[in-house]
Amino acid sequence: MTVKNLLDAKRKGLELAADDIRALIAAYTEGDVPDYQMAAFAMAVCCRGMTDAETFALTDAMRLSGACLDWRHLDKPTADKHSTGGVGDKISLICQPLAATCGVAVPSLTGRGLGHTGGTADKLESIPGYVAALSLADYRKVVEACGCSLTVQTAEIAPADKKLYALRDVTGTVPSLPLIVASILSKKLAEGADALVFDVKCGRGAFMETPDDARALARALVASAKTAGRKSVALVTDMDEPLGRMVGNALEVREAIDVLKNVPSAPRDVADLSVELAAWMVHLAKGFDLERAREKCRENLANGKAYAVFAEMVRLHGGDLDAFQTRWAGTPRLELKVERDGFVASVDARAVAQVALDLGAGRAKADDVPDLSAGVELLVRRGDAVRPGQPVARLYATDREDRLEQAAVDLASAFRFAAEAPSPLKLVKETLK
Amino acid sequence: MTVKNLLDAKRKGLELAADDIRALIAAYTEGDVPDYQMAAFAMAVCCRGMTDAETFALTDAMRLSGACLDWRHLDKPTADKHSTGGVGDKISLICQPLAATCGVAVPSLTGRGLGHTGGTADKLESIPGYVAALSLADYRKVVEACGCSLTVQTAEIAPADKKLYALRDVTGTVPSLPLIVASILSKKLAEGADALVFDVKCGRGAFMETPDDARALARALVASAKTAGRKSVALVTDMDEPLGRMVGNALEVREAIDVLKNVPSAPRDVADLSVELAAWMVHLAKGFDLERAREKCRENLANGKAYAVFAEMVRLHGGDLDAFQTRWAGTPRLELKVERDGFVASVDARAVAQVALDLGAGRAKADDVPDLSAGVELLVRRGDAVRPGQPVARLYATDREDRLEQAAVDLASAFRFAAEAPSPLKLVKETLK
Repeated sequence: MTVKNLLDAKRKGLELAADDIRALIAAYTEGDVPDYQMAAFAMAVCCRGMTDAETFALTDAMRLSGACLDWRHLDKPTADKHSTGGVGDKISLICQPLAATCGVAVPSLTGRGLGHTGGTADKLESIPGYVAALSLADYRKVVEACGCSLTVQTAEIAPADKKLYALRDVTGTVPSLPLIVASILSKKLAEGADALVFDVKCGRGAFMETPDDARALARALVASAKTAGRKSVALVTDMDEPLGRMVGNALEVREAIDVLKNVPSAPRDVADLSVELAAWMVHLAKGFDLERAREKCRENLANGKAYAVFAEMVRLHGGDLDAFQTRWAGTPRLELKVERDGFVASVDARAVAQVALDLGAGRAKADDVPDLSAGVELLVRRGDAVRPGQPVARLYATDREDRLEQAAVDLASAFRFAAEAPSPLKLVKETLK
Repeated sequence: MTVKNLLDAKRKGLELAADDIRALIAAYTEGDVPDYQMAAFAMAVCCRGMTDAETFALTDAMRLSGACLDWRHLDKPTADKHSTGGVGDKISLICQPLAATCGVAVPSLTGRGLGHTGGTADKLESIPGYVAALSLADYRKVVEACGCSLTVQTAEIAPADKKLYALRDVTGTVPSLPLIVASILSKKLAEGADALVFDVKCGRGAFMETPDDARALARALVASAKTAGRKSVALVTDMDEPLGRMVGNALEVREAIDVLKNVPSAPRDVADLSVELAAWMVHLAKGFDLERAREKCRENLANGKAYAVFAEMVRLHGGDLDAFQTRWAGTPRLELKVERDGFVASVDARAVAQVALDLGAGRAKADDVPDLSAGVELLVRRGDAVRPGQPVARLYATDREDRLEQAAVDLASAFRFAAEAPSPLKLVKETLK
C-alpha cells in the first residue's frame, strides 16, 4: 500500500493493516516518508482514532525503530512504573528503588520535564554529579549492580517516537489516545521490563483531566502492553491536588529523601502511593500475593532498605547526596500568608505547577534550561486547618527572584478555603488490570 | 493565533476566524508555514469540514495569493463556465465561444487533464500551433479581440492553490468539499468573470458519484461564488455515460468542431448541454430572460456564429484548423465488435475513461505527456439497437499501439446490453441557483 492510499484509508476511518503501519513507521524513521505525510497521518489518527490492533502495531513499530533491551541474563524478573505526569510527582525516586528491594530489577528509562509537569531526570540532576544520561552499556551495569537505574531515555530508544513527537508538537496532534499510548509504550517496551505498572494521573494537574479520559488511556495502555506479552496494570490516581508538599526539582528530591528516610514530617500520600505502585510491580513481576507485596514494600521502606538502594543508585550514577544536602540550603524564598480562618478546601495542582514554571522550575519549550532550585513548598494542604496570618507556602527561585512577588499573588489563588473540612481524598481512584 | 493553535482548533472541529485562515494561506504561500503544518490542516479540514464562512475565507485567501484580473474596461459583461470534470466533456470548446456570440466576454482560464478526466488545454493543443499557455497580457488581448479565450491557468493565478493541491495529492486530502470548492473557485474568482456557471458532473465517470455529493458541491460553489459578489448557478448533469461519442484529446476537438459546424452526425447531447450552459451564462451576465437566451444560443450555434468565434479564437492562439483536419486522419485504430442482439443499456463512463488513459490519452501523474491522438470513439451509445457482429467502438493510439488489444477487451466490459431499450437519460438532473 502506498502512503497516499494509507492516508486515504485512515481519512475514511478504515482500519489499517499492521504491516502497513509498520512499513510507514520504518520508512518515516529512515526519512523515506516526509514530515508532511506523517503530519497528515497524525491528524487523521486524531480525528478518526485507531483500533486496539492498530494502536499496538503503531506502538510496536515505534519500539522497533531503535534499540530494544533484554534482561533475561539477570537472575530476577524486571518491572517498571510509568506515570503520565503530574505535579509534585516524585514517586519514581521512591517506588523504583523500593521495588528493587523485593528482588525485582528496575531498568527505568525516564524523561525530562516539559510544560507543567516535571521530569525524573531533571529532578535527579539536582544532585551534584548525578549523570542521568548514561550510555546503554553503563545503564545496564547500574541495573546489574544495584537492581535499579533511573536513566534518561537516549536517542537510541524508539527514535521514531522522538521524531513523531516533535512533529505532533507543531501540528496540533498531541491529544490523541492512540498516539499517546504509542509514545509512552514504545519506549517502555523497548526498555524490556517484564511487568509494567502505569500511574495514570487524573485531574486538573494532569493531561487527562476527566475520569473518562484517564480510564480510556489506562485501558489502552494495559491492553497494548498485554498484547506485547507484558504483565500490566494501570492505577488511575488523583491529580487535582499536588502530590506531597514539594513542587520543583531539588525540592522534590529533598522530599523523596525524607520519605525514604522515614522523616516524620514526610508526606503520607507520597509514601502510600510509592508503596502501592511498588507492590504492584512486585506482584506482577514475582507473582507475590498483592497484599504480601504491599507488606514487604512497607517494611522495606520503613527499615531503610529502599533508601540504601536509592543511595547506591545515586552513587553509581556519580551523584553526591552529601553535596546535595548543603547545595540547596540557602535558596532565596518568600513566604505566602493568608488571612483566612477555617480549612483548606483544595489546592489547584495546575495553578501550583504554573507558579513553579513561572519561577523557572520547568521548560516552556524543549530547549529551556530549568532552574533546579526553583519551586513551591506547600505548608498546608487540602483538609488542613488554617488561622489568619498563617504561612501557607514558600516560594523558591534563583534565576528569576524578581518574579517571586507576582508568583506569590498567583499562588494565593491556587488555594480555596472553607468553613468545614473537605471529605478525605481518595488517592487511587481505580485499578485497571 | 499561532498555526499550532489554529490546528488544535480545527482538530477539535471549531470554526476558524476568517482572518486566521487568510493569515495561514498568506504565510503558506510565502513559505513561512511548512508543508507539514499545511498537511495537518488539510487532513483536519477533510475530517472536520468547514462552515460556509470558513470555506469562503479559504477561497478568497487563495484567490488573493496571486494575480486577480479585472475586465471592467470592456464594453460588455463577463461570464465563464466551469465543469468539475467528466468523460468526453468537450463542452467548453463549444459553450464558451457560443456565449461570446451573445455579447458576453468569456475570459476562460482552464486546466490540464489529470487522472481519468481530460483537460481543455490538452485538447486544444492537439490543434497544430495552438498555444494554451498565453501570458496574461496576450490572454487579455485575445478576449478583447474575439470575446473569448481558452487559456491554461498560469502560475500567476492562485499560486496557493497550485501549492496546496500538490500537497493534498500526496497526503490523501483530495476529497474534501471545502478544499475542492476553494480550489475550483479561487481560480475562477481570480479570473474576474461577473457570472459563473458550474457544470457539476454526477455519476460513475465523475468525482462526485452520488447525487447527494454532487448537490453538496453545487450548493457550496454557488454559495461561495455569491458571497464573492458573483452571479452564479450550478447544473448537476449526468456523468454515468460519456458525453458525446469521442473520448480523447484530438478526437474530442474533432467532435466539438462537428457540433459547431452542425454536422448532422454530431451528437445531440453535446450540443444541447452547450446551449443550456451558454444560455445560463448569457442569462446571468446580460440579464436576458433564460428562454430568450436559449433561443439566441440555439440560433447562433445553427447559423455558424459560434464556429466563427471558435475559429477566430484558435487563430489568435496560433492554431491552424486546416492542419488539424489532416494531422489526425491516419491514426491507427482497432474496431470493437460485439455478438449481441438488442439494445445498449449503458456505457460505463469511468471504464471508457480508463481505457483512454491506458491508451495514453491522459496523465496518471502530473508530469506525464499525453498522446493527443489516443482515445475511444463510441459507435453506439445508450439506447441504440445493436445486431450481432456490429462494430460498437473504435480505439485510437499512437505511442501505445501495443495496448490496443487489451484495451479492446477492457472496453467491451464497459458496455451493458438488454433486450429492451433503456428509459431516456435526463442530462440535466438539477439546477441550483
